Amino acid sequence: MIISLDGRLIDYTTLTLMNFPINKLSELRTLLKTNKIDAYIISSTDPHLGEYVPDHWRIISWLTGFTGSAATVVVTDTFAGLWTDSRYFIQAEKQLKDSGFILVKPEVPSKNDISDWLEVNVAPGSRIGLDGRIFSIQRFRKLEKIFQGKNIIIDIESDLISEIWTDRPALSTSPAFDFPVKYCGKERSEKITEVRDLMKRAGADYHLLTSSDDIMWLLNIRGNDLKYSPLLSSFAIIDQDQILLFAEETKIPFRLAMEFDKLGIVLLPYEETAGILSSIEEGSTLLLTPSLTSAELYNSVPAGVRKIEDTSIPAILKSVKNKTEIQNIALAMVKDGVALTKFFYWLEGNSGKLKTSELTLAEKLTCFRAEQENYFGQSFSPIVAWKANGALPHYSATVDSDTVIDGNGLLLIDSGGQYFEGTTDITRTIAIGRPTMQQIKDFTLVLKGHINLSLAKFPRGIRGFHLDILARKFLWENGLNYGHGTGHGVGFFLNVHEGPQNIGPAAGSDSGAVFVPGMLTSNEPALYREGEYGIRIENLILCSEDVETQFGKFLKFDTVSLCYIDKNLIDVSLLDEKELDWLNNYHSNVYEKLSQFLTEEERDWLKGKTSIV
Amino acid sequence: MIISLDGRLIDYTTLTLMNFPINKLSELRTLLKTNKIDAYIISSTDPHLGEYVPDHWRIISWLTGFTGSAATVVVTDTFAGLWTDSRYFIQAEKQLKDSGFILVKPEVPSKNDISDWLEVNVAPGSRIGLDGRIFSIQRFRKLEKIFQGKNIIIDIESDLISEIWTDRPALSTSPAFDFPVKYCGKERSEKITEVRDLMKRAGADYHLLTSSDDIMWLLNIRGNDLKYSPLLSSFAIIDQDQILLFAEETKIPFRLAMEFDKLGIVLLPYEETAGILSSIEEGSTLLLTPSLTSAELYNSVPAGVRKIEDTSIPAILKSVKNKTEIQNIALAMVKDGVALTKFFYWLEGNSGKLKTSELTLAEKLTCFRAEQENYFGQSFSPIVAWKANGALPHYSATVDSDTVIDGNGLLLIDSGGQYFEGTTDITRTIAIGRPTMQQIKDFTLVLKGHINLSLAKFPRGIRGFHLDILARKFLWENGLNYGHGTGHGVGFFLNVHEGPQNIGPAAGSDSGAVFVPGMLTSNEPALYREGEYGIRIENLILCSEDVETQFGKFLKFDTVSLCYIDKNLIDVSLLDEKELDWLNNYHSNVYEKLSQFLTEEERDWLKGKTSIV
Repeated sequence: MIISLDGRLIDYTTLTLMNFPINKLSELRTLLKTNKIDAYIISSTDPHLGEYVPDHWRIISWLTGFTGSAATVVVTDTFAGLWTDSRYFIQAEKQLKDSGFILVKPEVPSKNDISDWLEVNVAPGSRIGLDGRIFSIQRFRKLEKIFQGKNIIIDIESDLISEIWTDRPALSTSPAFDFPVKYCGKERSEKITEVRDLMKRAGADYHLLTSSDDIMWLLNIRGNDLKYSPLLSSFAIIDQDQILLFAEETKIPFRLAMEFDKLGIVLLPYEETAGILSSIEEGSTLLLTPSLTSAELYNSVPAGVRKIEDTSIPAILKSVKNKTEIQNIALAMVKDGVALTKFFYWLEGNSGKLKTSELTLAEKLTCFRAEQENYFGQSFSPIVAWKANGALPHYSATVDSDTVIDGNGLLLIDSGGQYFEGTTDITRTIAIGRPTMQQIKDFTLVLKGHINLSLAKFPRGIRGFHLDILARKFLWENGLNYGHGTGHGVGFFLNVHEGPQNIGPAAGSDSGAVFVPGMLTSNEPALYREGEYGIRIENLILCSEDVETQFGKFLKFDTVSLCYIDKNLIDVSLLDEKELDWLNNYHSNVYEKLSQFLTEEERDWLKGKTSIV
Repeated sequence: MIISLDGRLIDYTTLTLMNFPINKLSELRTLLKTNKIDAYIISSTDPHLGEYVPDHWRIISWLTGFTGSAATVVVTDTFAGLWTDSRYFIQAEKQLKDSGFILVKPEVPSKNDISDWLEVNVAPGSRIGLDGRIFSIQRFRKLEKIFQGKNIIIDIESDLISEIWTDRPALSTSPAFDFPVKYCGKERSEKITEVRDLMKRAGADYHLLTSSDDIMWLLNIRGNDLKYSPLLSSFAIIDQDQILLFAEETKIPFRLAMEFDKLGIVLLPYEETAGILSSIEEGSTLLLTPSLTSAELYNSVPAGVRKIEDTSIPAILKSVKNKTEIQNIALAMVKDGVALTKFFYWLEGNSGKLKTSELTLAEKLTCFRAEQENYFGQSFSPIVAWKANGALPHYSATVDSDTVIDGNGLLLIDSGGQYFEGTTDITRTIAIGRPTMQQIKDFTLVLKGHINLSLAKFPRGIRGFHLDILARKFLWENGLNYGHGTGHGVGFFLNVHEGPQNIGPAAGSDSGAVFVPGMLTSNEPALYREGEYGIRIENLILCSEDVETQFGKFLKFDTVSLCYIDKNLIDVSLLDEKELDWLNNYHSNVYEKLSQFLTEEERDWLKGKTSIV
């Protein structure tokens, strides 16, 4: 699964057609008038400001019909506009038809945000409304800057949607569950001590956690509030004595609550987070992450509390997988590889016999994964893209776009699973029928990039933007490129996109962390020929120690994903010895690790797929 | 010539032994008392805050005996300390002996600055003195931050040195001279128009230029005020109507002054810069570079003038060499290559016969360069380093350290010239006698990095930190590395270190500019084995257009330096086909371009040195 060039996340949520009455907009406008609001701004995030959002918070989708993952909406008495990034322009124009909303395309593509519009169109003295629960304080500060000196009031407690969204989906009531140490490798008490030690070092009396994944990691629990990530929507405040956990009480099983009690973890209602924050004593110090803390929560902290703004401590700690997690990841990779192998065997056997489509293949693949022990669900909406659909990097088949797999072509499949032993994410591109010379050359160039990133050795201190060229070099030498990042961090039975490290050209303040042994990252170079086909090869790579010399400690990557790479698409003459060795070793490892879990027929078939070139 | 890993510049100024009476310090302390100053801070820069400093401004060297290029000194009634970076520690300890100054080594090596000491040791209510002419406003702001809330006064008009430095070297009186368009390729009037257009786009009414090299480029003049860069020390203020040039009137020849007059370039005394800045009308906008503008000049600008803080417009424009400059660079490279070839031919013929040392070789090489037409001088102090001396990347032979070239070993020579046709900078490492297996392997790995960076192809938008790994990859794969940057920008008959682009691992706000066709940069991977030898291979590479495809415009590098690479140090079996091709093509180009300027003996010798491997 891929992320965009500038590090923003791409979502593959299945696009569904929705019905929307235009009168939602007029109802909203009526409320604007009643509440004396001149412009109302809506964000596509939820109170945790992360990548995944439960249906309850998909306000923009409900209001406008646009189902893309990232958007902002502004509504005034005479204007209703939606901003999103360029990858969604075609989709947005289609979905916004007859909604009353227009798509606002900025003149400069990178400036896909509402600032310019607001600066020009909001008159001095206006009153702006927004729901401060779903706007980060970082974003709110930008708004404040735009409106500086214009005598504009921003009402951040303006929730106009709840009143008009009558059939709003309820939030999940699924209970959280204990995530045993045999999977996660470290007692919650130990993790809490580590976090508290680092808080002391940072000089923080309190640490506010707003990302549910941070809390899941810290407390060794998981939940079921989101479709693809096993999260319990929650907030937490840590100090040296206790942890306040803000979540629905009914979602915490009794046995877990007892365990929590022993460790000084106090359960409080989810809605009380702001109230408790407001009672922090002046003069104390609070560590928080401004991009992930809502304006509501931030503003409830008394002004006399000193704030340290930084990445959360659990976010940094959880990116480094421990020994048990690493051992479990190896198990998860075998399961995932077995499911994929069975799927590809089945596909080859039935290709041309059964009528298959992108959607039916996605379902079939999910079934194979579901057969595996400790499988919990998909880690994201799978991408099965046939021919030209594969050239849309963020494509996800819908009932409308679903294409029948027919004739010769390239099939790109990007999918992943959540297992108790870890989160997987893998992409394979295979040829159905006889591939063209150009397809073979393209695939081989992408593969060379994939292999060379896998083989990277580097000293401590290196970040993703240093390594990115290894995956692109061979494409660049041929005037080719791909428009997204090369790799994203992956959680452990948590989010499939989970930093702070990444691999891509973007550098700067959010440029990804330094690589450290134990970090799990995707390696997914690609090539997209518009209207023709897409190629992407993705494995997960685990950072580990290499040699130590007088020149320092060196690191390397170990490829952990297990699935054959289609040899029909490889021009062996373009690979050098080192690359050939990598391919043959990888294939021999795939066969060795997976064959015992396959039927005899599958095994023989895999033997051929992984034979030496 | 190399720059440090974090982008700071390394200076190779020949270390000279100086006599210093300890009473300089007591004289300074007497002045502290008289002026009621509790702590006096001295910087190693001059009013232009660049890399090179005339002797007149080498206050620290005069006061303490320490001759390194970058240092800060703090003197109080009871303390006299010097801060410099770790590469100078050994030298500083030696040179500071008996000076009354101690070397302050920070606990964390990267924190080699005075902030921590000042924070702890300067009592609230103190009065600090410094000469605001040689402190950038950027640096001054950091000081202010440290002293915030401590009721500390910083007197930035405190020049205590002039009073006690009685035999201070005078500033140069060498005249500036016109730099003809046949060399620099563009009329000054045209450059001025370009800068004014960009000022308009940036919304700047005035543009303050504090770097003499910016002014040299803009006005098509050169000077002779510094040892290695052909600069006239000057400031300038540009608006849409005129250019105020602040320089010694006597240094501008009459004919040049007449030319300037026609273009509205007004000559004013160097010392009046601050006074004129103070008369800029409130409400107007001034573009300046905070890291290169002294606190004195910055503070003289009225508070009501809006400041845009950014890289100067000439700094950006001059980094992109024009067609004429590029043609001239090719000529300069031939001259430089001829000088080097003649030198290496002479060296090989006389090796073991004449008694040579690092210093005599440096002199001899300079003589060969001086024979070339339009040679103006050295572009930096040459590094000739024999055996273990080569392992000190910033080594420069002194009368004390000078080593006789004797027996077998590696000789590293990093040198460059200033020609009217451009600035050169080249490093070669050659074997004298029979090299060891380890030397050959090391050299070949460095060469592989050098070749792969030369061969880089990349889309627009790429910066030096993206490309750096290409030069290091083969070393990293063998647990090796070098502790400095891979490349620095090079001026055109200006500074040998001249950004804004560079190649190195450092990323962030000063991370180097995006590569653009016309940028000239060094490519100098290296390896240093302490106590044994150093290897560095440096050519200059010029960025140029490669192909344009549906995936965008691609760029490449053309290697422009011309000198054979010692084949005795290459293990051909470690080079792949592409690398071998590069080497053979490079050598054939070297021979083709240089042979006509050599004697028959030299030509035959070069034929052998550049024959196909």
